[in-house]
Amino acid sequence: MASIDDPGVRELLEQPNYAVISTSNADGSIHSAVVWVDLEDGAVLVNSAVGRIWPTNLERDPRATVLVFEASNPYDYVEIRGDAAGTTDGADDHIDRLAKKYIGQDTYPYRQPDEQRIKYVITPGRVRHMKM
Amino acid sequence: MASIDDPGVRELLEQPNYAVISTSNADGSIHSAVVWVDLEDGAVLVNSAVGRIWPTNLERDPRATVLVFEASNPYDYVEIRGDAAGTTDGADDHIDRLAKKYIGQDTYPYRQPDEQRIKYVITPGRVRHMKM
Repeated sequence: MASIDDPGVRELLEQPNYAVISTSNADGSIHSAVVWVDLEDGAVLVNSAVGRIWPTNLERDPRATVLVFEASNPYDYVEIRGDAAGTTDGADDHIDRLAKKYIGQDTYPYRQPDEQRIKYVITPGRVRHMKM
Repeated sequence: MASIDDPGVRELLEQPNYAVISTSNADGSIHSAVVWVDLEDGAVLVNSAVGRIWPTNLERDPRATVLVFEASNPYDYVEIRGDAAGTTDGADDHIDRLAKKYIGQDTYPYRQPDEQRIKYVITPGRVRHMKM
């Protein structure tokens, strides 16, 4: 079992690598989406807008699985499972920090006028690091 | 709603792009892993060895979600949900074809002496193509 503090795991999360977040739909099927991700105080942070599918899934069942892969070698990846807690506090600042990390912009350029951003803090439970 | 026959979706699956397969664990949490993938007769094919975690999950609950992303732009991706049917028939030939597609080798080089390969045919139900 790996840890969120392993150097290889931290590097995957700190570099601008993409993640796939998977959550459970109401019927038990699985929803997967590509997201930006970062690491803060040992937790995995992701961001969305209130009312979208995966945030709505997490409000019903907080169990999330996040897989973060190295773009040039996707077989270097970490799978993290944990419970997600959502908050709108600081969610706008957080999406701006992610925009800086991933696309080098100070402000997230895709914000919609009618959307409320929400940040999810995922406390890592099981961490699995695969590197082939 | 997209279709498995859309040109952009076919291209994602036909190129050597990596996939993330997500399945349900017995406790309802989600297992995600990076896999090779291809398209055959309108179905999505993946390959593993009998007894590993995600094949074992699929024997209990055949609902799989496969997300295939374009390596240089992971926000071009397709999410495919469908039921997976496993067979060991042709599974060795299939992993060799995947090795050819992904690493240019005629024979899969990582085969273990004691493993039985298994091929899963996923019949696409819901197909979602995201391209930003």
